[in-house]
Amino acid sequence: MNYQEARDTVLQELNTVFEAVDPNQVDQMAEMIINAEKVFVCGVGRVLLMMQAFEKRLNHLGIDACYVGEINEPAITDKDVLIVASGSGESVVPVAIVKKAKTFNPKVIHIGSNPDSSMTPYEDLFVRIPCRTKLDLPGEISSEQIMSSLFEQSILLLADMTALLIADKKQIIDLHALWRKHANIE
Amino acid sequence: MNYQEARDTVLQELNTVFEAVDPNQVDQMAEMIINAEKVFVCGVGRVLLMMQAFEKRLNHLGIDACYVGEINEPAITDKDVLIVASGSGESVVPVAIVKKAKTFNPKVIHIGSNPDSSMTPYEDLFVRIPCRTKLDLPGEISSEQIMSSLFEQSILLLADMTALLIADKKQIIDLHALWRKHANIE
Amino acid sequence: MNYQEARDTVLQELNTVFEAVDPNQVDQMAEMIINAEKVFVCGVGRVLLMMQAFEKRLNHLGIDACYVGEINEPAITDKDVLIVASGSGESVVPVAIVKKAKTFNPKVIHIGSNPDSSMTPYEDLFVRIPCRTKLDLPGEISSEQIMSSLFEQSILLLADMTALLIADKKQIIDLHALWRKHANIE
Amino acid sequence: MNYQEARDTVLQELNTVFEAVDPNQVDQMAEMIINAEKVFVCGVGRVLLMMQAFEKRLNHLGIDACYVGEINEPAITDKDVLIVASGSGESVVPVAIVKKAKTFNPKVIHIGSNPDSSMTPYEDLFVRIPCRTKLDLPGEISSEQIMSSLFEQSILLLADMTALLIADKKQIIDLHALWRKHANIE
Repeated sequence: MNYQEARDTVLQELNTVFEAVDPNQVDQMAEMIINAEKVFVCGVGRVLLMMQAFEKRLNHLGIDACYVGEINEPAITDKDVLIVASGSGESVVPVAIVKKAKTFNPKVIHIGSNPDSSMTPYEDLFVRIPCRTKLDLPGEISSEQIMSSLFEQSILLLADMTALLIADKKQIIDLHALWRKHANIE
Repeated sequence: MNYQEARDTVLQELNTVFEAVDPNQVDQMAEMIINAEKVFVCGVGRVLLMMQAFEKRLNHLGIDACYVGEINEPAITDKDVLIVASGSGESVVPVAIVKKAKTFNPKVIHIGSNPDSSMTPYEDLFVRIPCRTKLDLPGEISSEQIMSSLFEQSILLLADMTALLIADKKQIIDLHALWRKHANIE
Repeated sequence: MNYQEARDTVLQELNTVFEAVDPNQVDQMAEMIINAEKVFVCGVGRVLLMMQAFEKRLNHLGIDACYVGEINEPAITDKDVLIVASGSGESVVPVAIVKKAKTFNPKVIHIGSNPDSSMTPYEDLFVRIPCRTKLDLPGEISSEQIMSSLFEQSILLLADMTALLIADKKQIIDLHALWRKHANIE
Repeated sequence: MNYQEARDTVLQELNTVFEAVDPNQVDQMAEMIINAEKVFVCGVGRVLLMMQAFEKRLNHLGIDACYVGEINEPAITDKDVLIVASGSGESVVPVAIVKKAKTFNPKVIHIGSNPDSSMTPYEDLFVRIPCRTKLDLPGEISSEQIMSSLFEQSILLLADMTALLIADKKQIIDLHALWRKHANIE
């Protein structure tokens, strides 16, 4: 395996994934985020890292966002949106959080590959990234990459595509002016 | 060493430290926090963990607080307070942050043991916890504990004492009602 | 409320708590940690921060420790110890983690106030800090402090007392030599 | 802006970036990582999140990795590699860390866009992702995305391509067997 092969593997797999994503689901996610009072994101491992990158960009866009477990996490309410990312929809901690959160009645968005999981009964919107994670479901895109890398990459890119839709919907024209909301003492 | 000896060591050292803290400095810190638009906390290692515990309690008290490096960290301004904890006042990263922050002109509070450090020129208030850390300065309280444990414990207790002063100044009577600002999906 | 009153409240409550802790439980915890291949710590909110401070000190003492959720967290095995701190023993995420962990058969230590919780069936050792948290159980020490501050302070001090017992059992004489295991690029 | 436009923007920009990356630099990075005793990663904001994703994958590949600031971070030595990601090479905290680290003489890899920065004198290897970040340098690829999204995405994909090269060099054939090193109590 050399660089060119690794590069082509990654980029071609990503092209296949994003051909298969449903534009309506992404658009609905952008709308729900804009209409939320606050946004909470949730996941585990590398998936959580990608959702934290989403959270950070949402704050730049003027949307009040945090991750579940953040030091300054506030209480969730029925005006908020919880976005949980889990390929299988069966990760122990996210499932526990979704069930607990639902008692406070926020809108729940699930980003995953499995349309029929333990999370399904709690979801207001399912955004499907149809690539194989730990399970091996019909219609899933297979990958030559390590473990769930393709799913994790797809979450980051989906988040940044959604950020572009949100900027457009909020008519934010000068994307560079967003730096003023950015942490300035790093 | 048995439990009783360990317990007596820790509790007696803490008593000695808090006899030596200057009440006026603590009171001034509480006032500056109340008057800030936002509070940023900063530190490294176990000291950072203690400052994050302070941050979390400040949020419960209705004060908008984050740590430097938090995912949803906003930009700092001249209406904010930066509280940096560093025993020696010489830790590389906090010193770099204080210098950078000062270009945006927030108030700077330094909690430490060393009254004459690289941070001193940037400080608006120095709150002295006079226990030995890595340096060995005159007037410092020595410790039989591991590394800087006594300093770290002192920061947590000082933070919680300050929280009591803030609650009193803000006339928050029902301390149990603060749970409503607390993260509710853990 | 002035500084002296806040100080006396905090220090007197801590004295009362540590009079009531069972020395045998602390000693057993120190033994189990020394005999573990790896130590995992777990908790939520300020309790997690205190457990992370424990984890950091254990690493200084040459014990391989991480928190559940840490980026470089390895797989848990039956040679490891999981230490979960939860006053009530009912926090949703820690309970889910304890149940999941138990399928890999590590030793489980619970630090809490409630001796009869959802975690009890999974515990190999219960270390009681008998101060009131969200529940209000018989025999618990009440507190004038905000929310569960007394419990959180008690975890940190218990951790540092336990660290002293571990250093003694491992015959680590030069506590200052521990700095060589410490992160050196902060 | 609709989903298809956002998708095409992101994927086409990524294609342009990875056409421009130098394969030799990526190969050298993979070699240096394999030969290191430990790997430290460093960055700020979303860049740090991407580097933490890299760190996590390296651990799966049997490489001992942590981020600068992690709770269980050990001391760095001259057998280690520090990988710092910063587009401009001028971020205050990473520059301070690189300078401090260099006193312990690890190998330093810089992933960035600016080949002539404050970090340059400390670098053993520069891996160029030639897309515009805060500066606007000759030869840089411009982006229609928000802030430095393209740079951040590129770090993640570069990390995952590098992971494929490392797996190949270490002759790890069964990529799915890597799950056994993965955190198992999430």
